[in-house]
Amino acid sequence: MKPNPTAAILVIGNEILSGRTQDTNVRFIAQHLAELGIDLMEVRIVPDDEWRIVRNVNTLRSRYTYLFTTGGIGATHDDITMGCIAKAFAVPLEKNEEANQILEAYYGKERYNTARQRMALMPVGATLIENPIWKAPSCSVENVFVLAGMPSVMKGMFESILPSLEKGQKIESRSASCLLQENVIALDLEEIQMQFPNVSIGSYPFYEDQNRCGTELVARSRDIDALQQAFDAILNMITRFGGTPEIV
Amino acid sequence: MKPNPTAAILVIGNEILSGRTQDTNVRFIAQHLAELGIDLMEVRIVPDDEWRIVRNVNTLRSRYTYLFTTGGIGATHDDITMGCIAKAFAVPLEKNEEANQILEAYYGKERYNTARQRMALMPVGATLIENPIWKAPSCSVENVFVLAGMPSVMKGMFESILPSLEKGQKIESRSASCLLQENVIALDLEEIQMQFPNVSIGSYPFYEDQNRCGTELVARSRDIDALQQAFDAILNMITRFGGTPEIV
Repeated sequence: MKPNPTAAILVIGNEILSGRTQDTNVRFIAQHLAELGIDLMEVRIVPDDEWRIVRNVNTLRSRYTYLFTTGGIGATHDDITMGCIAKAFAVPLEKNEEANQILEAYYGKERYNTARQRMALMPVGATLIENPIWKAPSCSVENVFVLAGMPSVMKGMFESILPSLEKGQKIESRSASCLLQENVIALDLEEIQMQFPNVSIGSYPFYEDQNRCGTELVARSRDIDALQQAFDAILNMITRFGGTPEIV
Repeated sequence: MKPNPTAAILVIGNEILSGRTQDTNVRFIAQHLAELGIDLMEVRIVPDDEWRIVRNVNTLRSRYTYLFTTGGIGATHDDITMGCIAKAFAVPLEKNEEANQILEAYYGKERYNTARQRMALMPVGATLIENPIWKAPSCSVENVFVLAGMPSVMKGMFESILPSLEKGQKIESRSASCLLQENVIALDLEEIQMQFPNVSIGSYPFYEDQNRCGTELVARSRDIDALQQAFDAILNMITRFGGTPEIV
């Protein structure tokens, strides 16, 4: 089986590390990558710090098929991602003509001020990424896709680059939950895992209160037959221990 | 000014990278660290993969005052964090006597089965971390705190270790939002940033719809006088551009 393309996400933003903002971009991208058969291998969250961004961009872009960054693009002094991407690739920032035209047409000549003109600055060799929300585009350089931090804009940008990504084989999954504690079923579950090495089985306890606690079991695989067999074995095991599997 | 203690979080879990689960632990820990004056410098999310966990534990524990891991503790085959921590410190796993007593007392001799006994295995030299939800404790080794992935348990564990953490000086923050686009105020904001180098000013655009979009401005600093002056300058700037600052 051909290996799937791989990916990492680099979240850039003091507001995530200070706890001010709950990130939701990682999950959105992760869900879409899973659909496309692109394996998300790693996520890093770093502050608005040039040295850290450049270093992590270079580490992650060399390690995976794709790197998606979120955050730090825009017109204010704290939006340093474009400059960092340029540094990571050792190319200068230039006024991107295509971006410049889009921005000038959007704002009009009069209102196209210095701060707005800054948003046309991109690394030499960049390919534009469309912004369906308020026009100001972003870009990709080689395998690095520079996305906005604001969820609505990030989503629009991500959807616009989707067609250009190499697809892999989707990892299918099956999940069931039950009101058994995971340490009751742990040994039997491990035997199922050993029987199906191509299936990755995860066990996630949940605890709502003393009367409602249990375990969600998730089986994931690219091999659909092995997946179904492993999942059947999980369902049987739950029943054997006196539980009622609820397929989720 | 004495520098603040620093920290990193290592999130361990396939369920985050597959997009199945929305992580909320990072924000919880981030908010508490900010309160304590401990600077969260970096977060990494990695899969349930021994080599990756061990490597990242060693990188992050050597780089920061504290490392908090979340996820991968428990009784099932996919809970590999304890073994990874032991490997990272090059010590064996042993049956921790204190943990063993807590677990045996909780489950009772009869129900203390093999899977449950596994939860007493900890790296040699570990210090227990109490689990206020269902007793099964976790542990710390030197500056590495091994926390559960389930939010309720993670919170309980984090609160129980709080008193043992070295505190720094809290970074205070002030925020105001306005219905001005950030590229309108960008240049003036940058001047304020240059005037107050000890204050970190972030600009976060929001976009609800065409009629309700604007910018939230956040100033953060340990220097409370500089912070107040910078924030006053931000409020004045918003008014100067015809906006109405809303303090948030």
